[in-house]
This record gives sequence, structure tokens and C-alpha cells, in this order.
Amino acid sequence: MPKISKRAQEMPASPVRKLVPYALKAKERGIKVYHLNIGQPDIETPQTAIDALKNIDLKVLEYALSEGNLEYRTALRDYYHRLGFTDLTTNNFIVTNGGSEALNFALSTLCDDGDEVIIPEPYYANYNGFTNALNVNVVAIPSTIDSGFALPPMEEFEKKITAKTKAIIICNPGNPTGYLYTREELQKLADIALKHDIVIISDEVYREYVYDGKQQVSIFDFPELAEHAIIIDSESKRYSMCGARIGCLITRSKRIHDAAMLFAQARLSPVLLGQIAAAAAHENDTAYIMSVREEYTKRRNLLVDLLNGIPGVICPKPKGAFYCGVELPIDDSDKFAQWLLEKYSHHNETVMVAPMSGFYSNPELGKKQVRIAYVLKEEDLRRSVELLNDALQKYRAEFNL
Amino acid sequence: MPKISKRAQEMPASPVRKLVPYALKAKERGIKVYHLNIGQPDIETPQTAIDALKNIDLKVLEYALSEGNLEYRTALRDYYHRLGFTDLTTNNFIVTNGGSEALNFALSTLCDDGDEVIIPEPYYANYNGFTNALNVNVVAIPSTIDSGFALPPMEEFEKKITAKTKAIIICNPGNPTGYLYTREELQKLADIALKHDIVIISDEVYREYVYDGKQQVSIFDFPELAEHAIIIDSESKRYSMCGARIGCLITRSKRIHDAAMLFAQARLSPVLLGQIAAAAAHENDTAYIMSVREEYTKRRNLLVDLLNGIPGVICPKPKGAFYCGVELPIDDSDKFAQWLLEKYSHHNETVMVAPMSGFYSNPELGKKQVRIAYVLKEEDLRRSVELLNDALQKYRAEFNL
Repeated sequence: MPKISKRAQEMPASPVRKLVPYALKAKERGIKVYHLNIGQPDIETPQTAIDALKNIDLKVLEYALSEGNLEYRTALRDYYHRLGFTDLTTNNFIVTNGGSEALNFALSTLCDDGDEVIIPEPYYANYNGFTNALNVNVVAIPSTIDSGFALPPMEEFEKKITAKTKAIIICNPGNPTGYLYTREELQKLADIALKHDIVIISDEVYREYVYDGKQQVSIFDFPELAEHAIIIDSESKRYSMCGARIGCLITRSKRIHDAAMLFAQARLSPVLLGQIAAAAAHENDTAYIMSVREEYTKRRNLLVDLLNGIPGVICPKPKGAFYCGVELPIDDSDKFAQWLLEKYSHHNETVMVAPMSGFYSNPELGKKQVRIAYVLKEEDLRRSVELLNDALQKYRAEFNL
Repeated sequence: MPKISKRAQEMPASPVRKLVPYALKAKERGIKVYHLNIGQPDIETPQTAIDALKNIDLKVLEYALSEGNLEYRTALRDYYHRLGFTDLTTNNFIVTNGGSEALNFALSTLCDDGDEVIIPEPYYANYNGFTNALNVNVVAIPSTIDSGFALPPMEEFEKKITAKTKAIIICNPGNPTGYLYTREELQKLADIALKHDIVIISDEVYREYVYDGKQQVSIFDFPELAEHAIIIDSESKRYSMCGARIGCLITRSKRIHDAAMLFAQARLSPVLLGQIAAAAAHENDTAYIMSVREEYTKRRNLLVDLLNGIPGVICPKPKGAFYCGVELPIDDSDKFAQWLLEKYSHHNETVMVAPMSGFYSNPELGKKQVRIAYVLKEEDLRRSVELLNDALQKYRAEFNL
């Protein structure tokens, strides 16, 4: 038998994806599964995007430019100008197959084998997958649910910096915690990055979905980081078009841009069709974004209230994105999540959650936590929490908790 | 300034893509550029694929399954059944963002840092990009233009195998040479793979485009390789839909499949829209494939004849794919290709070719060679060769060759 690489043997299974086979089996048994496990909103994609596809007038679905076609990069530039970053040109953008590929390019550009990136935990679980595939080590900065996942003092980041540290990765607003970085925190991070000559990779794919009248502060709000900042962006969450696989890597640094372009050229082209859909989605999107933000606000408020009403459940109120990190009165969230799909149902319905063990560098820390995405409409969220409450009682009884 | 990784510093610029900025500038000067440099056919995408996009009836462009949606994997399975591989099920396929991502998954699954893959050269230049990004070393088996790029005896492959060798990569039919492997050659490769317990990664994206009544033999025609073979496939060339970014990784080995799935899960989802287009393209495609094959045959015959008519030019007749490896009476094909875009024009037209230095592990070997893709219609091919002939004379005069 040929050997499987160490790289593959050490790949963490995606906590969001590894349960999918169980969900498919549950569906085969006729059970309806409420998907709270993945950031796949039920929100409709903007009609402008769908219409752009319906109206495509192409005879040949050609390769796009490796950096993305000019038309779409122009739409991105205009969008960033509206965000206030009027110095950016179409040359600052590299269009990627989802934010995933942008992160892969960023890590490939900065990190060699055995290098380190610092990430506040809990963090988006697939960061482990991307770093592992490149033999890059994650050094975690802990935050805990008791303090609503508030970050430790920024100085903690500095303590973790070694000669091998190449970047700090933040997700702002955060997946899975909904944490929103303050300007002061980001300023301190910027100072640290400059002092130690490392890069801040800022995953800002949820920037539109920030609540309670607050606004996201971007890493690009710190012009002193011109050579030290990369934004990972994506249209997936903004426009509920995760399947279009359109993201981008943005940097003011020509050095980083040009190096990242080598990886972009090797894979030839990002996807063409998604660029067409996304460029259209950017047109007159204000009403769309506002109504989606309002919808998520309602869902968040409902979900957090309902969850905190269940005995033993702790759910801090997230400030942005569309996830809650939730502590449950259970022994093992991986086991519980699988049990929900394999053993539990009520009126032929069950609920799927993402165990949070995979969102920590030390899985033990997430053993009682799950991530719940508020991507379903209120009625479905209500039913999901009802199921979760009922399931928790049965699970605790079955395992004598 | 933050450090750029060694991985990035050593990334080879794509020979096909690095000239793009010069081509864009030529176009800005009002010059028409005939693109012989890239495998982007002017052949129309099947209307069924375009219609499937025009008729999409989706409200949300959702994530696809990490392994690709069942509907498209069913279309792939049926296609492979028609090829004769009736043992395959939808579980043998992982849908990827182009053949590029499939190759990345294959290498990631089999190779760690410093491992080796054996590849007959000249080879598809981006293999260098994918291997370099993962710190995998290419060990080349030379073939030369004088013998029409015929492979050396298969035993040469065996001589190169070390403890670090994890795979042999072949492209069949070959890019850039059009080489078609015989059943005997593949049998010997299969024997070697089994003897040394290594995997054959077979890039078969051009299998439909084989000429002169010949037929491609697939690596899957050797059932003894069940645990030792991976096919890289893509719809890009088959259906002239390079921009759809739909490829796949196929293996009979559950071990390899399951390991590759971890990388697929980390990036969540292949592109949704391309799967819809590609599934439709597979329906009743016989007439389409036959007419495209006929068209490529005509173009190949025309191109090879015209090129061999230019003094000092050597162009072996390719048996498949849609490229010729061509030797020109020049000093440096990188310099010549750039000169064509920057300095040369005739009636405001010029031609773009891919220097072949990047298709060899030792760039010197390709210094007088270019790859020419016969992806343009006959009239454009005629004009392109006319331009090339004229340019060669002027270039040789300018540089006293």
C-alpha cells in the first residue's frame, strides 16, 4: 500500500464537514435536519446576481485572468472605495476561489515549513486545515466563554512571538464567536506587527454583519500597515452565495501581492461565473445589505434569548457575523453532535450543530461547546432550539449526566 | 519589510501567464494578439451547458458538498461507465476547482516536504508551481524533440526511484508534446509502480482529443493499480469551459480518497455553478466531441505543415491534446516571446507563444522551444504562422542570429 503523507495523516477533519455523512444518512431515514452547523444562510442571493447568470451572453466559458477579470476587480475596487479605502486600485486585488484560497495564498506567501502564525482561539476551524496542509503551526491566544470570548490584553500576542512567527490571523467580526475588535485593540496589534515586522492577515468576510449600530474597523484603517496587512474577503457571506466560490486577497504591499500572484498563476484562473454573479451583486446593494443585517439581528436576538433560557446553557451575545459559541451541559460535543444525527429525532426532525473542539488548538477546550449559526429563519430557529432543549434532556438522561 | 517565504521566492513564474502583462500592454497599443500561448480554445462551450446556466432555478447559490454534489458526480460516474470503468461509483470522485486543485490534492495526499515525484519532461509547466508550493521535488525523465518527444525506455523511470519517490506523474495525451502513451508503456509503468509501491498520477484531461483513429489508454485500464492510481480529470478542455473551473480527482483507493477528502473539506466546497454547467454538458455530447475532435485534427495538420515549412523550425506531429512543442531558430524563447509582444507587429498584429523553458526541470533544455496551442480557427492559425515566420526573420536579423 502506498504511503499517505504525514501532511494528510495530520489533517484535522473539518468539524463542520465531518458530520455530513451522518446528516445524509438521517435524511435517508426521512428525518428533517435543521442545519445550524454551517454558515450557509437560507437568505436569498441578490436577484441581480442570479439575473446576471440567466443573462450571460458568452459563447465560450473562458479562463479568467489569474488575478481576476478587470470588470470584477473594478467592482471590488469601487466597493472598497465606498468603504473609504480610496487609495486602492484594481491592482491591489487577487480574486480567489473563495476566501479559502485567499488564505491559502496568504499563508503560502508568508510561511515555510515549521513557521508559526498566532491566532486568538476559538477560531474558524478550517484555519487548522490550511495551516496543516502547509506544515505551518498555529500558536493560539486563548479567550474563554465566561468572558464572552473577550480577547486577552493585546500584549499576550507579543509574548507568543518567536523568530518563526510570520503572521497574526484575526477574524473580525469573528467566526465562531462574533467578536468585534475595537480600534484600540487593532491599533495595539498594528504596533506589534510593525515592531516585529510580521503581517496581520485579517479575515473580514463578515464585515457587513455587525449589529447594535456598531461598525467594523478594518485592518486597512491603519495605513502604517501598508506592507504588513492582508485582507481576506469573500462574497459568500455578504451575498449568501457560498457556492459561487468568489473571494479575494487584498494588500497594499506590492511585494506581497506579486508573490501571491505566483500561486494565483500556478492555478491559472479563479472561477469565471462567480465573478459575473458577484460583480452584479455589488450593484445597488445597500437595501439588500440593510435588510439582511436587520434579519440577522432579529435572528441573533431570538436565538441568544432562547438558548440562554435552557438550563445549563451559556450563550454570550455576539456582536457580529452569524454564529454563537455556546456551552452546553454535556460531556463531549463531538459525541453529542453525532448522537443528534444518529440516535435522536422528535417528530422526525433533528438538529445539526458544529462541535467546537475543532475550533481550538487544544480540542479539550471546546469539548462542551458547539457553534450555532443563525442562518435559518426565525420559525426554524425556534423549532431548532426546541429540539435542542428536548435532545439535551434525553442525552443527559441516556448518559447519566 | 516582512519576509516573503522561501516557498514563494522559489515559485516559478508560469511561462504561460508571465507574459500576460506584455500582451495587455500590446492590446492597449491597439495591437491584435493571436493567442497561441494558452490552452484556451476558441471552440464554443456546448450550448447545453450555457442553457443550464440560463435556466438556473435557484434562490440561494449554496455551498456544494465538499466532494461535489451528487447530481454532478452521477454525471461523472455515467461518463466513466461509458469509458468502460463500470466498477466506479459516485464515491470514487472528488470534484475540484479545476484539474489544478485535483493535482494539489493528489500531491498533498501523497507527498511531504522533500519528497520526490518523477515526471517525463517536457511537462506541463504548472506542475512546477504545484510541487514547489508543497516543497516537493520534481525528478525529470528527459525526452527530446529530435525523436518527436518519444519516451525513453520505461526502465529509465525505475532508475530514478528513491526512498523519497511517492509518485510518477504522467500527462496522457501530453501537454505540451501531444505524446500518447502506448498500452505497453503504461503496463511497464504499472509494474514499476506496484514493485516500488508508489502511485501513478495520470493527468487525462485531453483524453477525448486523440487523432488519427487512435484511442487513449487510461491508467484505470490497469485494475491491478486499484490502490496505486489517481486520475486527474477536468471539463475545461473537453468542453472548452476552462473558466468554469471544474475538475476532479478519481481513485479506486478508498485510503487515498479518504485522505484527499480532508483537503477537500478544508476548502469546504468546489464551485457550484460549474457543476451545473458541466453536468449538462455531459448529456448527449457525442456529436459535440466528434466535431471538436475533427476540428482539432484539421488545425493540427494545418499548423504542423505550415510550421515545418519555415526554415529552421522543427515541429513533431502530436498524437493528441492540442499543443505542439516546436523548436525555433532563436537564441532564447523567453526573450523572443516577450519581443513578439513588446517590439514586433505587422499590420498591427502579433502572436503570443509560450516559451518552453518552464516546461523542463532544467530551463536550458527548452531555450529554443515554444509551445504552440492549436486552439484558434484555421484562418487565424494561418495568419499566426505568417506572423511567426515574418517575426523570426526580423528577430534573427535584429540579433544577428
